[in-house]
Amino acid sequence: MKPYKEMSREELLSLKAELDKQFEDVKGKGLALDMSRGKPTPAQLDMTMGLMDALNSESDMKTENGVDTRNYGLMDGIPEAKRLMADIMGGVPVENVIVYGNASLAIMYDTVSRSMTHGVLGSTPWCRLDKVRFLCPAPGYDRHFAITQLFGIEMITIPMTPEGPDMDLVEKYVSEDPAVKGIWCVPKYSNPQGISYSDETVRRFAALKPAAEDFRIYWDNAYAIHHLYDDKQAQILEILSECEKAGHPDMVYEFASTSKVSFPGAGIAAFASSKANIAEAKRFMTIQTIGHDKINQLRHVRYFKNIEGIQAHMRKHAAFIRPKFEAVLAVLDKELGGLEIGEWTRPLGGYFISFDAMEGCAKAIVAKCKEAGVTMTGAGATFPYGKDPKDSNIRIAPTYPTAEEMAEAADLFVLCVKLVSVEQLLAKQKGL
Amino acid sequence: MKPYKEMSREELLSLKAELDKQFEDVKGKGLALDMSRGKPTPAQLDMTMGLMDALNSESDMKTENGVDTRNYGLMDGIPEAKRLMADIMGGVPVENVIVYGNASLAIMYDTVSRSMTHGVLGSTPWCRLDKVRFLCPAPGYDRHFAITQLFGIEMITIPMTPEGPDMDLVEKYVSEDPAVKGIWCVPKYSNPQGISYSDETVRRFAALKPAAEDFRIYWDNAYAIHHLYDDKQAQILEILSECEKAGHPDMVYEFASTSKVSFPGAGIAAFASSKANIAEAKRFMTIQTIGHDKINQLRHVRYFKNIEGIQAHMRKHAAFIRPKFEAVLAVLDKELGGLEIGEWTRPLGGYFISFDAMEGCAKAIVAKCKEAGVTMTGAGATFPYGKDPKDSNIRIAPTYPTAEEMAEAADLFVLCVKLVSVEQLLAKQKGL
Repeated sequence: MKPYKEMSREELLSLKAELDKQFEDVKGKGLALDMSRGKPTPAQLDMTMGLMDALNSESDMKTENGVDTRNYGLMDGIPEAKRLMADIMGGVPVENVIVYGNASLAIMYDTVSRSMTHGVLGSTPWCRLDKVRFLCPAPGYDRHFAITQLFGIEMITIPMTPEGPDMDLVEKYVSEDPAVKGIWCVPKYSNPQGISYSDETVRRFAALKPAAEDFRIYWDNAYAIHHLYDDKQAQILEILSECEKAGHPDMVYEFASTSKVSFPGAGIAAFASSKANIAEAKRFMTIQTIGHDKINQLRHVRYFKNIEGIQAHMRKHAAFIRPKFEAVLAVLDKELGGLEIGEWTRPLGGYFISFDAMEGCAKAIVAKCKEAGVTMTGAGATFPYGKDPKDSNIRIAPTYPTAEEMAEAADLFVLCVKLVSVEQLLAKQKGL
Repeated sequence: MKPYKEMSREELLSLKAELDKQFEDVKGKGLALDMSRGKPTPAQLDMTMGLMDALNSESDMKTENGVDTRNYGLMDGIPEAKRLMADIMGGVPVENVIVYGNASLAIMYDTVSRSMTHGVLGSTPWCRLDKVRFLCPAPGYDRHFAITQLFGIEMITIPMTPEGPDMDLVEKYVSEDPAVKGIWCVPKYSNPQGISYSDETVRRFAALKPAAEDFRIYWDNAYAIHHLYDDKQAQILEILSECEKAGHPDMVYEFASTSKVSFPGAGIAAFASSKANIAEAKRFMTIQTIGHDKINQLRHVRYFKNIEGIQAHMRKHAAFIRPKFEAVLAVLDKELGGLEIGEWTRPLGGYFISFDAMEGCAKAIVAKCKEAGVTMTGAGATFPYGKDPKDSNIRIAPTYPTAEEMAEAADLFVLCVKLVSVEQLLAKQKGL
């Protein structure tokens, strides 16, 4: 089929009639599918149930250095869990790691909140400044943007490229504007595009010369080991050592968790940074909590053993969710290939596929899908303030439905993309 | 023996010589005992190891309302854990409860931090105010005071009475000073005195008429079910319903945890408050975290079942730690009774005994104990800014050593009390 924009008014009207009919047919089926949530299915979670046997009432509850995980102490995590999380983050030094509770998002929130009330390594608390800005590569993760918005931090959208954020813009803002205090990054298999930062991008991050002494890179390495393929895997440079080499050891905060390795909400999360940043975080932790759940840390280490154990586990996940991704991609390729009404990513890992519709179509497509029983992530959610300036990006989350349901949902999705695109082209023609 | 202050200089000097000799003897024994930490022993923790069998790889991981605890969702806690924590807090309504992660201290910190950055139910964020004050009944819990100190909140010491804080003073400050935004309370078996607030005290709390709309009572019900005796148990009025009856439903935040029920650091913690306060806390939670560890909540409910199960468990704890308390009290009674150089509490629950030495003696006594190998909580730690104006209060934590070790440590303690008291009396006589 030829590109829609090369079609005549008559061809578009005839196509619309046909698509309308198809849509009514699908609507009649009463679908109830969800492509909005980056969450695992019960069957995927079943693969990790061995974790529940890792400790029992006969277990030795001591860490490798002899500390009783059942009691107070070891504020910064048990040594074996620190090592495991350090390895997940690509081999950062163990002494640069703190293992927290169950959610890396909570660490990020806490880090921003602490900067608001107490500043960063002695800088002015952000709540006393007239203006604080964060750079937000977008499309990106809505929960990052929700944190900065909650604290009244002004968000500046940075376009993404296939190599990562537009570094020319990042360098300009960071070096010129002392109000720019941070940037949200998902450097590997980014949410939602699945982009992994190139070596040059990481090195340019490490070489940033911030106008603000308290500027930090918020490096959310959420999908560090979440490959979809055995033979095609992204690798990114280890940011802590790159920052150190570049003479800016304190410039990065790295976050990771096992939320999509073990159980969402019942995993363990970690923070990695320079010696000075780690010391500051610990200083607050001693006042903030009596420590994190060391038993759950021990449970994870006893079950996964080490990074090789985790990687073997993630290969099982990949084998399970890859067909879901491929089902969606097959439909997109077959149904939308050559029509020039949308572009999509082919991620090698992570939890999402990113779809860019023609400008001004995303909201209408999501609404149309909803009308026929398929829930998508809200259009705009991947941009700061929930506003996609082009109304173009749609996040597809293929992990929760089955591969068959995914194919069915994708069929409806491409139908809605076609329909909304045709309607927009017709409206444009009328406007001419 | 007669009261020390009735002794002549000669008697005191002779006594001192004898005590000095005893002290040198004990010092020679090379003790290494710790009465500083309110923590359970491994043997006490062993009583809860069944918790580790409550879930295994064959378990049904769904809540009573069918939610998979292994996945995202149920931000405010699983229903059965909410009910359990509601019952622990004396029967507050389940809908007024949020179950959090592993530490109630973290909830308290978070609540203060949120008030700093965002105010309370729409009030001015505290970080924008010139002055924020908290009332601190003392002796009290050092970690409470550490939180308010960290945020630059001015702390005002309120003396404790056997019925709870001096309510005349509390009423005066709260009703007259709009900068007073909170008060730290441990209403039952208070740390360190073991005092439980009388009904009149609780009712006067509920009837407070704060000058500040955003004044809150921080009601840390840490020892709600931590009785030492079956037949002598304190009961306190349920504060949420008292506040509601008095027309101030939003005035109280209640906190509790199972840190000293199951495992310190691997338990579950809860927050209870009015509908409006709960709604506000949830609004922030949706941005702050992906949820708390629901599997650990489920584990606790499957193991303890209900409040009766918890109470039966706590009776076992009581039988285990009561002899330690009694060992200390027996030594204090026998060795210090009638000497008028100290007073101590006889708690019916909680984790501490509070000792008041003669004014100006606490630091010296703690130092003397340390010299002979017995670690006490630092003198002053129970007061705001770590400064006991009378240098009199010493917190005794009897739970960690065995009853035999406790007796040994208490023997040294009373020896040090005598010695320091004699020295002070001699110095006073000299000064006259």
